[in-house]
Amino acid sequence: MSDVKVGIIMGSQSDWPTMKEAANVLDELGVPYETRIVSAHRTPDRLWEYGKTAADRGLHVIIAGAGGAAHLPGMMASKTRVPVVGVPVQTRALSGVDSLYSIVQMPKGFPVATMAIGAAGAANAGLMAAGILATSDTDLAERLDAWREALAASIPEVPVDE
Amino acid sequence: MSDVKVGIIMGSQSDWPTMKEAANVLDELGVPYETRIVSAHRTPDRLWEYGKTAADRGLHVIIAGAGGAAHLPGMMASKTRVPVVGVPVQTRALSGVDSLYSIVQMPKGFPVATMAIGAAGAANAGLMAAGILATSDTDLAERLDAWREALAASIPEVPVDE
Amino acid sequence: MSDVKVGIIMGSQSDWPTMKEAANVLDELGVPYETRIVSAHRTPDRLWEYGKTAADRGLHVIIAGAGGAAHLPGMMASKTRVPVVGVPVQTRALSGVDSLYSIVQMPKGFPVATMAIGAAGAANAGLMAAGILATSDTDLAERLDAWREALAASIPEVPVDE
Amino acid sequence: MSDVKVGIIMGSQSDWPTMKEAANVLDELGVPYETRIVSAHRTPDRLWEYGKTAADRGLHVIIAGAGGAAHLPGMMASKTRVPVVGVPVQTRALSGVDSLYSIVQMPKGFPVATMAIGAAGAANAGLMAAGILATSDTDLAERLDAWREALAASIPEVPVDE
Amino acid sequence: MSDVKVGIIMGSQSDWPTMKEAANVLDELGVPYETRIVSAHRTPDRLWEYGKTAADRGLHVIIAGAGGAAHLPGMMASKTRVPVVGVPVQTRALSGVDSLYSIVQMPKGFPVATMAIGAAGAANAGLMAAGILATSDTDLAERLDAWREALAASIPEVPVDE
Amino acid sequence: MSDVKVGIIMGSQSDWPTMKEAANVLDELGVPYETRIVSAHRTPDRLWEYGKTAADRGLHVIIAGAGGAAHLPGMMASKTRVPVVGVPVQTRALSGVDSLYSIVQMPKGFPVATMAIGAAGAANAGLMAAGILATSDTDLAERLDAWREALAASIPEVPVDE
Amino acid sequence: MSDVKVGIIMGSQSDWPTMKEAANVLDELGVPYETRIVSAHRTPDRLWEYGKTAADRGLHVIIAGAGGAAHLPGMMASKTRVPVVGVPVQTRALSGVDSLYSIVQMPKGFPVATMAIGAAGAANAGLMAAGILATSDTDLAERLDAWREALAASIPEVPVDE
Amino acid sequence: MSDVKVGIIMGSQSDWPTMKEAANVLDELGVPYETRIVSAHRTPDRLWEYGKTAADRGLHVIIAGAGGAAHLPGMMASKTRVPVVGVPVQTRALSGVDSLYSIVQMPKGFPVATMAIGAAGAANAGLMAAGILATSDTDLAERLDAWREALAASIPEVPVDE
Repeated sequence: MSDVKVGIIMGSQSDWPTMKEAANVLDELGVPYETRIVSAHRTPDRLWEYGKTAADRGLHVIIAGAGGAAHLPGMMASKTRVPVVGVPVQTRALSGVDSLYSIVQMPKGFPVATMAIGAAGAANAGLMAAGILATSDTDLAERLDAWREALAASIPEVPVDE
Repeated sequence: MSDVKVGIIMGSQSDWPTMKEAANVLDELGVPYETRIVSAHRTPDRLWEYGKTAADRGLHVIIAGAGGAAHLPGMMASKTRVPVVGVPVQTRALSGVDSLYSIVQMPKGFPVATMAIGAAGAANAGLMAAGILATSDTDLAERLDAWREALAASIPEVPVDE
Repeated sequence: MSDVKVGIIMGSQSDWPTMKEAANVLDELGVPYETRIVSAHRTPDRLWEYGKTAADRGLHVIIAGAGGAAHLPGMMASKTRVPVVGVPVQTRALSGVDSLYSIVQMPKGFPVATMAIGAAGAANAGLMAAGILATSDTDLAERLDAWREALAASIPEVPVDE
Repeated sequence: MSDVKVGIIMGSQSDWPTMKEAANVLDELGVPYETRIVSAHRTPDRLWEYGKTAADRGLHVIIAGAGGAAHLPGMMASKTRVPVVGVPVQTRALSGVDSLYSIVQMPKGFPVATMAIGAAGAANAGLMAAGILATSDTDLAERLDAWREALAASIPEVPVDE
Repeated sequence: MSDVKVGIIMGSQSDWPTMKEAANVLDELGVPYETRIVSAHRTPDRLWEYGKTAADRGLHVIIAGAGGAAHLPGMMASKTRVPVVGVPVQTRALSGVDSLYSIVQMPKGFPVATMAIGAAGAANAGLMAAGILATSDTDLAERLDAWREALAASIPEVPVDE
Repeated sequence: MSDVKVGIIMGSQSDWPTMKEAANVLDELGVPYETRIVSAHRTPDRLWEYGKTAADRGLHVIIAGAGGAAHLPGMMASKTRVPVVGVPVQTRALSGVDSLYSIVQMPKGFPVATMAIGAAGAANAGLMAAGILATSDTDLAERLDAWREALAASIPEVPVDE
Repeated sequence: MSDVKVGIIMGSQSDWPTMKEAANVLDELGVPYETRIVSAHRTPDRLWEYGKTAADRGLHVIIAGAGGAAHLPGMMASKTRVPVVGVPVQTRALSGVDSLYSIVQMPKGFPVATMAIGAAGAANAGLMAAGILATSDTDLAERLDAWREALAASIPEVPVDE
Repeated sequence: MSDVKVGIIMGSQSDWPTMKEAANVLDELGVPYETRIVSAHRTPDRLWEYGKTAADRGLHVIIAGAGGAAHLPGMMASKTRVPVVGVPVQTRALSGVDSLYSIVQMPKGFPVATMAIGAAGAANAGLMAAGILATSDTDLAERLDAWREALAASIPEVPVDE
């Protein structure tokens, strides 16, 4: 079983600039991960294979980003009990409201841990993955606490003109 | 190959009161059909199987209804070239806007012929299926024309108090 | 009767950059088509004439794009039994939600096969038209399958920085 | 030429309970009117005929109510220069937002004087029609002023428990 | 009494680029008009004065444009029986949906003839005003018919690459 | 000058069941108030008079509730410097989103302190009024603190089946 | 340290009928949990205390439900690194869209794993909590797999009239 | 006790370009204020401290701006009886509708005086603060009246091409 416990998947290469924020956060926290393009519609068999083997391959969290009729996170949640964190990618016409509704409104049985639309949501997906791993990894829990403290410490007291 | 050229599928038994409108219209037009519950999330393998065999089994149109994060129509469209007609089922919190966005906002490559939200959309899915079959079935084309003429003829000229 | 089985119509010259995506897909699939500007409001008689003669002229699918109070697809659906595929063109103030609602929320009797808002929806309209024709054209069915396989094969496994 | 200068048309008998509010207001103001069911989709030829003859028949205002993909007001506006007042009828899934967008978002060339969603909008359509007629009818102008003054006078100064 | 029968008013100088479209259409149709900035909130007394004298000054239509909490059209409608045509000006955060709802959702008693959001709506406000005047001005009716015919005649049959 | 420092006004008797919540909270806090029906559209002169005399009559806060194209709070804010607290009353078709946008989206110069849609918003309007008065009334400040503490103390620790 | 690894908190007793669905699922899966009412606004100190001690008390997941300006899940996420699963409770005026936006749109640093609006979302919160615990609890992983299989097995093949 | 009676707080440095409009208005009116960055999520203890000491420090109004899941205004309202004026900062994906709903939809007990989305709302927050202070400061009341008169006087009568 690999050391990689987090998979970052996305529906298309065009989602990468958004999803990279998740990877960046995991890098900062020292959490190894893999990245894959898995399109629910264009490569459904890849999705099937990824989902069916996820638990046995040792994945503990799957971060899935998609836009529009964003079926990837929900379909992945139907194929594995591994927690799926969904990132609604911003879209052109509907600004990601379509992505959000398609990801968050899952029926009973198949939760997707939905994050905010766009880059902030992707970064938070990395943090949520770390938070989940930290429930059974004391070292990571400490690194996550430190990351959070550093964020708080970075906030100035008074706004300044720029 | 069977005579049944239209499959009516839905994500759950609770979608049947809506989707029955499609069946009723096909009954009126003398178009045979089959009905199946195929849940994208709860029975993904059933979806796979249905999609992979649809064309070879002689299906010409698949009518798919679902609500919320309504992945069934789009996932079916990814598994078969048979035209998929999608019906957004009305939902409690978001009135079916979630269903509509999840069904209609498909990425390039996998169209879903989306109908109106709810029962009118389901009835129209039956008519759309008939219209597609009628492109290569002169008898059905005539029955469809007659159905449309009867609808027009049923409209009174003046509204009345009821 | 002409060999052209697909008509691409639109409410205005300004819709062409969007609707051209439908034409491009049909070109790729070797499906002949005609293009027309038919404005529901500015040229209603042209709409009437187009709709009334569509079936007799041998059209099997009409792709209709429009924006705002987008009446063209629905009015065409009221004039012919030939399946109408509707493309909501993106608009300035309401981003195409107005176009989407005006096209998709048709009453019982007159379905419009509604696609996604904008260019992806137009491309998918071309694919939907091909899928409908393919129900009675084995050669096209094979070309459509190949097109879909090529799309799937074009997806890389891993995202890359650009 | 008839004395009837206002036509109240609607897409369906089911719109009458809403549209009757327009008729009631016109009754109160002593403005004669006619009522017709004219469905844009089910009876498009009736719509054509009504629109083409409206001006010559002496109509000065057409009040048109419809719901969902509400094409009736806009299509009527494309067939006649007679001012069209549109009433978005409330719908089940989308509460009339679909009706509103389909009626109000008309392209340059074909205005529809859009009212509020539902019964208040229908009543106001009657008042708008009267206001238009009053621009060339001093007696009606006085009756309209009186109606407005009575409305203002009917407002109590202090709210009471009921 | 002046020859000017149409007043174009707006809440702010910043609305003029939109509202000018109404003026342009009236110019094309040979309809004289006046333009005023009348802010419901900043110059409520000016609004009062304008409304109270409108009918006596011979105005037959008031075109009122405003954005955001767009109270100008509705408040004007409360001060005069002269028909008010409302133009929702596009806004930054809410794209004019706020303007639209504030203008169209008037209570019983005070209709505002609401047009589409933005420039197309302003142009249509000019046409609606002309249509209202044309109910008692045969010459203008003919010019309006000609304007409409010219618009229809300007539509090419086939879209072209640009 | 009267002891009454808070005016509760509303567009219609039908708003009273909602606005009564504001009165109830003020009763609990021992803050005297007056109630008036002031319709922006039906009684604009009453609105003018109320606004122009508000400060001189000793009013410190005006609570204004309205629904739909809810112009009352904003128009009152244009007539007086006395702080106006706006309550969007829930509506039938648009659930009060129209009321909310019409009240909150005020242009620079004329703030309305907007509360939540419906009864909770009305109760909070009472609390906001009390909070404003409390900035110069130590006794009321203490009563307000006590009210808030009682609210906190009323929350059980564990939910129970009912 | 207690055996209870899941805390179910909610803003008010009125959220319990919704949140009970989370408890029911955890009961079915044999996962112990505690339930608390913790109002972000009415009992902020309770929220502080709960968040600060959560990790040390051995909580692995916090399920937080709230409606309207639903600040509880996000504020809890700011006080603890323990993963927070948010449930948007359906509201009267805005149907839970307000709850959804307030919960899901968290800034970088403080993810909330957002579920669907209402009861299905609450049930899924229970499943998400179980999925998180199952990453380090093989027995629970097996029970979760069995629960999922039973769900799939419960779906009939064909819809039936009821 | 300090002379500063208005606190302007915001969730992040990036909110300052918007919130500066509030400061500018207070400068114009000669009202002293302090500015602070207080993040509900990143510096919750700073929020606690600020809220708990606000009344004793002599603050009479707190202006709080935030975007997205904008919890700052509401959480501040839960910690102090000092009136909180909330400014929804415009966001990228949802244009500030998320900010608006998170700020305005507060439950009974904790009102936030919500302003318009973005810069106009921030300016109005300054005016609302001044209006509140002016209820017990006759000099400021006169300056506020003068500011409002100057605004009205700045409006030209007729729009001009630019």
